[in-house]
Amino acid sequence: MAEMVRGAQLSRVENTLQAAIVRALFAVDGAVSRAHLASTLGVGRSAVNTEIRRLVALGLVEEAGFGESRGGRRSHLLQIPRRAGFVAAVDLGATSVDVALTSLASDVLAHAAVDAEIGDGPEATLERVGELVDRLVDEQGLDRDDLRAAGVGVPGPVEHVTGRVVAPPIMPGWNDFPVRDAVSERLGCPAFVDNDVNVMALGEHARGAGRSVEHLAFVKVGTGIGVGVIVNGQLVRGADGCAGDLGHVCIDPDGLVCTCGNRGCLEAHAGGAAIARAGEESARSGSAPLLAATLEQKGALDAADVGFAASHGDLEALSILRDRARLIGLTLATLVSLLNPSLIVIGGGVARTGDAFLAEIRTAIYRRTLPLATRNLPIVTSELGADAGVVGASVLAARGFVLGGVA
Amino acid sequence: MAEMVRGAQLSRVENTLQAAIVRALFAVDGAVSRAHLASTLGVGRSAVNTEIRRLVALGLVEEAGFGESRGGRRSHLLQIPRRAGFVAAVDLGATSVDVALTSLASDVLAHAAVDAEIGDGPEATLERVGELVDRLVDEQGLDRDDLRAAGVGVPGPVEHVTGRVVAPPIMPGWNDFPVRDAVSERLGCPAFVDNDVNVMALGEHARGAGRSVEHLAFVKVGTGIGVGVIVNGQLVRGADGCAGDLGHVCIDPDGLVCTCGNRGCLEAHAGGAAIARAGEESARSGSAPLLAATLEQKGALDAADVGFAASHGDLEALSILRDRARLIGLTLATLVSLLNPSLIVIGGGVARTGDAFLAEIRTAIYRRTLPLATRNLPIVTSELGADAGVVGASVLAARGFVLGGVA
Repeated sequence: MAEMVRGAQLSRVENTLQAAIVRALFAVDGAVSRAHLASTLGVGRSAVNTEIRRLVALGLVEEAGFGESRGGRRSHLLQIPRRAGFVAAVDLGATSVDVALTSLASDVLAHAAVDAEIGDGPEATLERVGELVDRLVDEQGLDRDDLRAAGVGVPGPVEHVTGRVVAPPIMPGWNDFPVRDAVSERLGCPAFVDNDVNVMALGEHARGAGRSVEHLAFVKVGTGIGVGVIVNGQLVRGADGCAGDLGHVCIDPDGLVCTCGNRGCLEAHAGGAAIARAGEESARSGSAPLLAATLEQKGALDAADVGFAASHGDLEALSILRDRARLIGLTLATLVSLLNPSLIVIGGGVARTGDAFLAEIRTAIYRRTLPLATRNLPIVTSELGADAGVVGASVLAARGFVLGGVA
Repeated sequence: MAEMVRGAQLSRVENTLQAAIVRALFAVDGAVSRAHLASTLGVGRSAVNTEIRRLVALGLVEEAGFGESRGGRRSHLLQIPRRAGFVAAVDLGATSVDVALTSLASDVLAHAAVDAEIGDGPEATLERVGELVDRLVDEQGLDRDDLRAAGVGVPGPVEHVTGRVVAPPIMPGWNDFPVRDAVSERLGCPAFVDNDVNVMALGEHARGAGRSVEHLAFVKVGTGIGVGVIVNGQLVRGADGCAGDLGHVCIDPDGLVCTCGNRGCLEAHAGGAAIARAGEESARSGSAPLLAATLEQKGALDAADVGFAASHGDLEALSILRDRARLIGLTLATLVSLLNPSLIVIGGGVARTGDAFLAEIRTAIYRRTLPLATRNLPIVTSELGADAGVVGASVLAARGFVLGGVA
């Protein structure tokens, strides 16, 4: 194991020009020519060719067929390796563990998921991750020595420098736990850890709706509400790794008490639990027959039940969703004023409850921002859907591994 | 003139390693050794030495005395040039034109200001700028051929790619005007243009309270309210150049009508005009004797009058300022939740009205954010004060000139 880690660390980029080449290849999500790279980077062809030879030898870049000829010799195109080495991508949810194996370019090779309570604590959870990785590696007939890196998304704040979880509200037993080091030891490869919403933003930016977008906000609306922000092509983690805390923005100083202890947080008013609670109230009041039937059958409602009722003609359920979407949209309007993003992507379970939800978010954002910031601003649903977490974890791992250590 | 522009363009960095070296030197705001640069960039000494020789020949880096010996030969330290070439830095305000000449490292060599209405339009305003630059160049005995670049901050949104002003609310006659090209032609050097608050944030980041800070929010509280955001060491301009529009964040959907046409914008409630109006109302009501005396004497009040009264014992004036500071602080709490900055700097005329204003902003931010985001968050007043605009314009010009064209 120790040998593999050492080998892995050796095959990172060696200098800033190599890093720039690899960054350019990650950014295009496809194959490009040497001439294109040289012109993009403003560097001479011979310098680029020298570093590309090294990168190919290190296994960090591979040749990918021929480009079109412009009269001279046809040249090999280059890409992030699809065939050499693989990555373990892990998405830890409140009640699930998702694991995928992917190429360094984040193509999913295999994917498995199990139910698991995050509250079982780090040791039990990460052992489950290890077993899933082992199983997938065996099933795919992969060589364990080709595992280059692991990426992990967790439902709480992560201190980026140390890879530790810090003061997570919904991860009992995980506070200050060194997730990065524990995963690295269990899997025998470098590991990279970040907040789940940041990880989804990375995935959507690299391989989803946000491809080639410079300024992206990925909003997750589930039990919790958060945003992963990409600015100038880079993820915004902030000073303590807790940027993107959309759920605890105050929308009403005299509002509902939140799990965080403050009053009037967006999440307390518009998160999955708030939607479920409003749905149960409507069911009990008799104004929402479909919700009432579901409540009688299941004993409790969740946000998905409200979404189902809304999309099957229950006007009260529709109104519950619209009211919450409006609150989220008004809060996102502030984000738009501050950051002027090129694209907003809405993901997470509640976002999948239907078109009315997205429409209401759009309306609220457009109403409360200046035209200059929204004239070209698409607001769309996640392209990766439920895969955003593992694809993003793969992107986190691949970039961290390849570019790690060089600014 | 054409020759000088051509010469200037030639002396930009030639490749990504040169760009990385220059970026590292801009970041330290001082002199560093070759060995330090090589280790910071993760590149071999000989590659760094080769590029440094080129950069010195191009006039983009200069030697700056000897570093401490570690047993071997003492080596020259390196820095952004203090002695070769200069920059014209321009801060256009609503009622003033500030011009400074600085070194490429943004040391101010000379500074002049005149009253001028921005509403006189671009031709008249930029002619005043040209005359001020000519005068300062003559007074300082500088060689016009050594003018490397010009930086301009304007009180409105700027389309970064073209350097045009776009839909500016307080710059009548400037809409779509190509400021960058006009300044470049008048002064005969490359020009770089940005929004005034962005420019101040750059200045505070490079040479003020935000030195070596990765995530900075510079808040300007004056007639308008805006924020310049630096994330991962880079300015956030957004998709259309209108990021940082703090003044038009909605704080009350049923609030006052703003100049932008929406209701309840922060600026409508807490900007300089709102403070002045509240001061006049208090003066007329008889509850603020000092304000009343000033109003009688001047016929109208501005925010500075309210600040003066507050710091001289007028409790009503103090209360006006505190109420507005609280609104600004609550809005900044949202920014803190979204971006988790390392530092907030408060600048602009209203911020200079006294300590009570800053204290109230601090209290509101700390009260409405999670402890993880604020446990290490200093909230301070601008170190550059009224010079933030010209210093920032110099930083914009120097970096744009030296690094322009290379990603």
